[in-house]
Amino acid sequence: MSGSVRVTVWNEFRHEKKDKEVKKVYPDGMHAVIAGHLSEQEGITVRTATLDEPEHGLTDEVLANTDVLTWWGHVAHDEVKDEIVDRIHRRVLEGMGLICLHSAHFSKIFKKLMGTNCSLRWREAGEKERIWNIEPGHPITKGIGDYFELPNVEMYGERFDIPTPDKLVLISWFEGGEVFRSGCCWERGHGRIFYFRPGHETFPIFYDATVLKVITNAVRWTAPRIIKAHDCPSVKPLEEIKSKGLYP
Amino acid sequence: MSGSVRVTVWNEFRHEKKDKEVKKVYPDGMHAVIAGHLSEQEGITVRTATLDEPEHGLTDEVLANTDVLTWWGHVAHDEVKDEIVDRIHRRVLEGMGLICLHSAHFSKIFKKLMGTNCSLRWREAGEKERIWNIEPGHPITKGIGDYFELPNVEMYGERFDIPTPDKLVLISWFEGGEVFRSGCCWERGHGRIFYFRPGHETFPIFYDATVLKVITNAVRWTAPRIIKAHDCPSVKPLEEIKSKGLYP
Amino acid sequence: MSGSVRVTVWNEFRHEKKDKEVKKVYPDGMHAVIAGHLSEQEGITVRTATLDEPEHGLTDEVLANTDVLTWWGHVAHDEVKDEIVDRIHRRVLEGMGLICLHSAHFSKIFKKLMGTNCSLRWREAGEKERIWNIEPGHPITKGIGDYFELPNVEMYGERFDIPTPDKLVLISWFEGGEVFRSGCCWERGHGRIFYFRPGHETFPIFYDATVLKVITNAVRWTAPRIIKAHDCPSVKPLEEIKSKGLYP
Amino acid sequence: MSGSVRVTVWNEFRHEKKDKEVKKVYPDGMHAVIAGHLSEQEGITVRTATLDEPEHGLTDEVLANTDVLTWWGHVAHDEVKDEIVDRIHRRVLEGMGLICLHSAHFSKIFKKLMGTNCSLRWREAGEKERIWNIEPGHPITKGIGDYFELPNVEMYGERFDIPTPDKLVLISWFEGGEVFRSGCCWERGHGRIFYFRPGHETFPIFYDATVLKVITNAVRWTAPRIIKAHDCPSVKPLEEIKSKGLYP
Repeated sequence: MSGSVRVTVWNEFRHEKKDKEVKKVYPDGMHAVIAGHLSEQEGITVRTATLDEPEHGLTDEVLANTDVLTWWGHVAHDEVKDEIVDRIHRRVLEGMGLICLHSAHFSKIFKKLMGTNCSLRWREAGEKERIWNIEPGHPITKGIGDYFELPNVEMYGERFDIPTPDKLVLISWFEGGEVFRSGCCWERGHGRIFYFRPGHETFPIFYDATVLKVITNAVRWTAPRIIKAHDCPSVKPLEEIKSKGLYP
Repeated sequence: MSGSVRVTVWNEFRHEKKDKEVKKVYPDGMHAVIAGHLSEQEGITVRTATLDEPEHGLTDEVLANTDVLTWWGHVAHDEVKDEIVDRIHRRVLEGMGLICLHSAHFSKIFKKLMGTNCSLRWREAGEKERIWNIEPGHPITKGIGDYFELPNVEMYGERFDIPTPDKLVLISWFEGGEVFRSGCCWERGHGRIFYFRPGHETFPIFYDATVLKVITNAVRWTAPRIIKAHDCPSVKPLEEIKSKGLYP
Repeated sequence: MSGSVRVTVWNEFRHEKKDKEVKKVYPDGMHAVIAGHLSEQEGITVRTATLDEPEHGLTDEVLANTDVLTWWGHVAHDEVKDEIVDRIHRRVLEGMGLICLHSAHFSKIFKKLMGTNCSLRWREAGEKERIWNIEPGHPITKGIGDYFELPNVEMYGERFDIPTPDKLVLISWFEGGEVFRSGCCWERGHGRIFYFRPGHETFPIFYDATVLKVITNAVRWTAPRIIKAHDCPSVKPLEEIKSKGLYP
Repeated sequence: MSGSVRVTVWNEFRHEKKDKEVKKVYPDGMHAVIAGHLSEQEGITVRTATLDEPEHGLTDEVLANTDVLTWWGHVAHDEVKDEIVDRIHRRVLEGMGLICLHSAHFSKIFKKLMGTNCSLRWREAGEKERIWNIEPGHPITKGIGDYFELPNVEMYGERFDIPTPDKLVLISWFEGGEVFRSGCCWERGHGRIFYFRPGHETFPIFYDATVLKVITNAVRWTAPRIIKAHDCPSVKPLEEIKSKGLYP
């Protein structure tokens, strides 16, 4: 697992093509901004992939050469083919890292890994968010201080219907009165998963330096520690068995 | 959630029809033995359902009147229709309890709730199993003592590919040299899930008094504490919002 | 564990004797208000105990007849004798429930059970608190709705230095901008522990109907499921041992 | 946290001085063997400390220059001064790693961090142990394969009275019929703790290559990610507070 962390930044890339306001913020798509930042970080190499490419840009070969996949989707979750979702799922269980951003809480791959509805309360009112770091020793929060603020966001509020995170690292405070578990870590199979709440198509969240720092930290944290294919072997005994059961 | 716990005991019910040896052990199917025992317990009412019934015996109406579903499947996991699996899944997330027995580790519903492969090592050699109670205060282990033994079993060994259980209550020792996390508790949505390792089509495991006690305890433990439908509401602010964002 | 839950409501009971403002709110002590409410609930019997009684009111006999202990302390944590703390600790590990209220985050018994500093940020500014229910299916949140509000409170903010809770059930939002894990569940030994943030000597928090409901629910949830004394037995083998080691 | 990991290998060092049989196995003490191995690993520097040194060899200065402390004690747990235990405890919560070996389950520092009795079943019969790796992706199990065996050991069996580990990585199978959670990870404060079962004064466990590999891996895993002193600050509001409470 030495060498560069090979990241594939995936984006639905629909809002940016159709919506003038979004295009102003992300002329080349959100993926371009995220990938641009990551590509400047030491020890990280980046490619991008989007929904409308063949196989959504996630061929077997691309995934075999991806250590960490970041995911942003919103209006077209249902257009992601089950076959590709299964392929990503298999790869995460083998050890690939997955970072789900903002509205990716409702993506097929996130729901498949969590096993729950992943629902929440929400509101688009441009309110302020303050994100508290409750695990200052965790690699994902390195360098972000006690909290950071985003001036205008879409709100996500509890109850967030997820399995209890293995580690909860960030909790959000919203101007309008809600709270949210905004940074959540899980391990599934041999892979690591990080859900990170910030991110939106019209608010320029992915230009925020702290948001980008968290994503970069998460790339390093979710990078594979092992890649191991799934099996379910029939095995020989390691000790002599004297019991024999009912049927010879 | 007062009144009886209404259990539906589900069984694939194929081995018992086709295999003479299995038929000898479970002439009316495993479900009949489990349901028979449960129906004698105070505060529990029981029905059964099997794969070859219409909708696998799990109509909307049956599920709406089921508090806890127990599941045994083995050779025909793939024949369980996705639509019915989705229906069970939705009901578990709303609060219904689910108890997965033995080879149900590979059932569609268990894998869908766990999000992992749920694979393991295995061996059919009729060996002895000793199941250790590591949580004597847990309702599921009530009355079973420090450990119990099964003289002849199919072995399941680690690594069991599951999310870290919310609570691990039983660990198995096998004569042939393996160990296994044999009693595992999770919460998903509002529902509780218990995986219990013992159970097999030819070894008469479901006649064992302690196995039946654990299943009975698990029925009480997984019984719903709430039933609540899933939603993802857009909500009004609870505090005045002064920030307004970029787009008026 | 049938019959009534026998609760001992413990209070430091110093502020109420010395401070005129506190006396106005709690003329007979906070314990009197909490105990008064609990004693009206079905299936709960209550006694109280305070710091200045002999053995802090927590003799061996009292503890042997206590199923759940609630704890409030603030200015005199250090005056609680280590010998009594050890006695409570032993009893919790045997199965007694413990509910730590507000400033009890710094009590000797809570820190001894957690193993951490249990520190936090704080402010006394009379601000508003909104407490979000993130586990609507948990017995402790039964009947409290999606959230409840307290108009004027002392603020506690993250990072709260505790072990990751087995289950986090409540998260607070504060007017001044912080968040806090306000309802936390742990199991230690055979006992259950609940930390509940609300409560203060001058704000009349313990008269709030929802606060009292949570405490009542927590009494039922922490009630012992087993009482079992600690041992560390040398045991005989259950299987024949052929290996013999180096030294005969 | 770059540079070498600075390890202090602590040993009670009493058996080795008094008991002829132990002296044969560990003429210079167990700490010498463990430290000898660690000192040959890249990026690790080692010192040792023992009970009978002044301040048990753990002065403020030594601890300030220790990233990871390994602990072995058995017959003299009670002779470790509370003041030194408090010092270690404080340092772990600040971020220092701690590795507790075998009979250190009953050490003051381990019990203080766990908050439980840490009791278990045990037997000295020289039996075989097989330790299963249930988390092949975890840094601590790197390179050890699916399992490893120790031909002659003292047995530790469940129930091990510990808080549910944040991550359970190893489970033991014993010839005599028991099982044990042999590799357990926790985080407390900013520090990481690993409990590792193998190790004994007469069986030459600390010469075993896989045992030494696990300890080496654990040194790297518990190495501090942050060092941060404890505080409990009174803080100013981040948002304007309009509520004012009862007392102006």
